[in-house]
Amino acid sequence: MDITSVFKLLQDDIHSVVFATINEFGRPETRVTDIMLCDENSIYFITARGKNFYEQLIDNKYVSLTGFKGNSTISSIAVSVRGNVKDIGAELLNEVFEKNPYMNTIYPTIESRAALTVFQIYKGTGEYFNLSKRPIERYTFSFGDAELTWNGYFINDKCIHCFQCLSVCPQSCININEKSAYIRQENCLHCGNCFDICPASAIERR
Amino acid sequence: MDITSVFKLLQDDIHSVVFATINEFGRPETRVTDIMLCDENSIYFITARGKNFYEQLIDNKYVSLTGFKGNSTISSIAVSVRGNVKDIGAELLNEVFEKNPYMNTIYPTIESRAALTVFQIYKGTGEYFNLSKRPIERYTFSFGDAELTWNGYFINDKCIHCFQCLSVCPQSCININEKSAYIRQENCLHCGNCFDICPASAIERR
Repeated sequence: MDITSVFKLLQDDIHSVVFATINEFGRPETRVTDIMLCDENSIYFITARGKNFYEQLIDNKYVSLTGFKGNSTISSIAVSVRGNVKDIGAELLNEVFEKNPYMNTIYPTIESRAALTVFQIYKGTGEYFNLSKRPIERYTFSFGDAELTWNGYFINDKCIHCFQCLSVCPQSCININEKSAYIRQENCLHCGNCFDICPASAIERR
Repeated sequence: MDITSVFKLLQDDIHSVVFATINEFGRPETRVTDIMLCDENSIYFITARGKNFYEQLIDNKYVSLTGFKGNSTISSIAVSVRGNVKDIGAELLNEVFEKNPYMNTIYPTIESRAALTVFQIYKGTGEYFNLSKRPIERYTFSFGDAELTWNGYFINDKCIHCFQCLSVCPQSCININEKSAYIRQENCLHCGNCFDICPASAIERR
């Protein structure tokens, strides 16, 4: 999945997401915030300088967000993004209000927008999940020159091909025969069952 | 709004929420997780011991979550909860799968559930938001003997009743006349416009 499609999904189809920052006590804090604009390498959102969220953004310079689309109450497609953030001021504020006219009902007058500012996530990594597929699907991505890291479980050459891992895998996402063995990363839940049951310590967690 | 109604809203109407924890690098991490069960003083969710989420829960012993209902892509009612969390093992796992039968498609066999465990948020505070009301509505709550704290902006007796705050308030939630002045906390966005414009330093941020 290319970054333009993921950002379009975030802005147009998901739109309202949950942002997490770390507060003055070193604890996570979450709230709903909307994805106002995206371009090829950045995500833009707004907040007011009077909010704790603003102070935490300035302090942390980093944010994690997750949004999803669902059937009624069950999430089906989820996107998570983590990355570096900076306050870019009010320059894009008119564009934000033009593209998101419902904001006019929350901040109805020009005067009432005095405290608003735009933040840009300019560098980060993320993950796309589709929980409605069987097996589930997941893909990682990066933007703004961030390095992509691979987390998950991997089978090394200590594998004795006993097939016990396959018997406990909820997504049947282990391709194993007498000669080779690997986990289909794009289908793995990261539950760790294979790691726990392997008698040969052939599963690596990265 | 009583805690039973809020928890029922979280479990039955919102259900899929975003949880934030802090990772090994001291940064926030978010993912979608479902509210599986609630009782009068606790929220229950599950995860697998192989996930980074599990390790962070064990390390942090604390979580922040936010969920919402919306019209298409815009959030209207949001609930946030922050609190202390503990691993209570697999005792409630059957009840979780009975009340949430869709989980059987993700973890289809008993063997595949080996790594699952139930977490309980047993003490915390939270906030209910209704962004579809004009003005918006917000209420705080606590459960499990957690102390309720009041954040926001408050007018003290330095107020000179100049009415400038009212002119910049996006929600018109300042009740002010020649004799008295207060901010209706249940309608305030915490934008900070009143704090910024007050010429008498009569607005306190708590």
